[in-house]
Amino acid sequence: MHTVQYYETDAMRIVHHSNYIRWMEEVRLDYLDKFGLAYGGMEEEGVIIPVLSASCEYRAATRYGETVKIIAEMEKFDGLRFFVFYRITSMDGTVLHATGRSSHCFLNREMKPVNIKKAAPAIYEVFKTFKKA
Amino acid sequence: MHTVQYYETDAMRIVHHSNYIRWMEEVRLDYLDKFGLAYGGMEEEGVIIPVLSASCEYRAATRYGETVKIIAEMEKFDGLRFFVFYRITSMDGTVLHATGRSSHCFLNREMKPVNIKKAAPAIYEVFKTFKKA
Amino acid sequence: MHTVQYYETDAMRIVHHSNYIRWMEEVRLDYLDKFGLAYGGMEEEGVIIPVLSASCEYRAATRYGETVKIIAEMEKFDGLRFFVFYRITSMDGTVLHATGRSSHCFLNREMKPVNIKKAAPAIYEVFKTFKKA
Amino acid sequence: MHTVQYYETDAMRIVHHSNYIRWMEEVRLDYLDKFGLAYGGMEEEGVIIPVLSASCEYRAATRYGETVKIIAEMEKFDGLRFFVFYRITSMDGTVLHATGRSSHCFLNREMKPVNIKKAAPAIYEVFKTFKKA
Repeated sequence: MHTVQYYETDAMRIVHHSNYIRWMEEVRLDYLDKFGLAYGGMEEEGVIIPVLSASCEYRAATRYGETVKIIAEMEKFDGLRFFVFYRITSMDGTVLHATGRSSHCFLNREMKPVNIKKAAPAIYEVFKTFKKA
Repeated sequence: MHTVQYYETDAMRIVHHSNYIRWMEEVRLDYLDKFGLAYGGMEEEGVIIPVLSASCEYRAATRYGETVKIIAEMEKFDGLRFFVFYRITSMDGTVLHATGRSSHCFLNREMKPVNIKKAAPAIYEVFKTFKKA
Repeated sequence: MHTVQYYETDAMRIVHHSNYIRWMEEVRLDYLDKFGLAYGGMEEEGVIIPVLSASCEYRAATRYGETVKIIAEMEKFDGLRFFVFYRITSMDGTVLHATGRSSHCFLNREMKPVNIKKAAPAIYEVFKTFKKA
Repeated sequence: MHTVQYYETDAMRIVHHSNYIRWMEEVRLDYLDKFGLAYGGMEEEGVIIPVLSASCEYRAATRYGETVKIIAEMEKFDGLRFFVFYRITSMDGTVLHATGRSSHCFLNREMKPVNIKKAAPAIYEVFKTFKKA
């Protein structure tokens, strides 16, 4: 859920498209948090999760004052990378505003890609459960 | 060309990935402007160009103080939509920071999609030249 | 109430100071809305409320994952302009993160300053109640 | 100098006021850089310069496509804090868009305020020259 802020609008009087990429991050971090993968906790374990790619398809504009529902779900996890899919809809689900995707890998403190199974087995176990979902 | 601003960084000490989507817009509007398709001029003719989709693949992070080179080029124009491709590199071209894509259509003042050939032949003629390029 | 988003942080690993100015707007528009002065409604009546000035004193940084309480209150209304004061604290009120101020006037559709008492008496009546508060 | 970007506009079709606070930072960091006080260099010496306060008075709106001139100048330096004043005008200087102010102190790596004369005499010497200017 995200309530559109005035500062997110642009001169077309709609939300600037770059903000959807931010909303996706907002929801992704919440989503991982719910599975015990809080950003802070992972960072303490020395695991950094960068964005490898992000994309958004814009269907229906959003405007100041609207509140949207944003759903994130794991699409794929292969041990090295994971892929998240997003749907941004009106609160009642009848209007599809946008869909998006992002992909991510795991880095250690030296910013080197790691195999999460070896680097942080506990985190790996959580990601493995997504695969089945 | 874009010089990374401090306010574009995030807690990873790199540029937040959403800003690349903004840089792409910056360069796209400049690019269209160079072909006589200034945003203001098109708006006066009643032609609005929304973003249908945007995507970015992040290769190498950028940091505060760096200046990057951003190249936009038309990938495809089919009369109804056009597709732009972007490359973000270091100024000397040796580091590829990111590549991106965006797609767009043409709307009239009532926000209805239009065939640009009928709606604004002069704009169509310019877009047609891209196809050959 | 505002939950700090990752995209609001900067390379110092704290919220970039410009975001407090945005949070102040967020809370101000909510505050006016509660008094029946919804942004959309005022715009329909042809009343635009620009920002004349904004300032913020930063006391204690905020970080990703924190949730802050933001209180807006009318400081003064003189018929032509109004002044809002803001306090940003931790949710339990024990940490003062920042205080801020903003001032505003009333414009008509032609972007000319208006005396709100004459231009929109109903809106004036609401603002008058703030004065007593 | 800053060219207004489309993503900096809001639904009033003018630059969102929070961006002026960002432009002030942009110009301040350039200004300090010119005096040999590059952000990166100071950080290496263990000196962090946070924003204690920032304010802006908005006089005339700026719009997409405009380029503005932004001047920063040191107003005061007392050994512990410094104060910067900003003027944002049209390129020809005939339109005053905004004026602003910010204040700053010096922190060490532990985020404790320091007397810059003792902590980093070389940086102190540069700041002292501002006082005379």
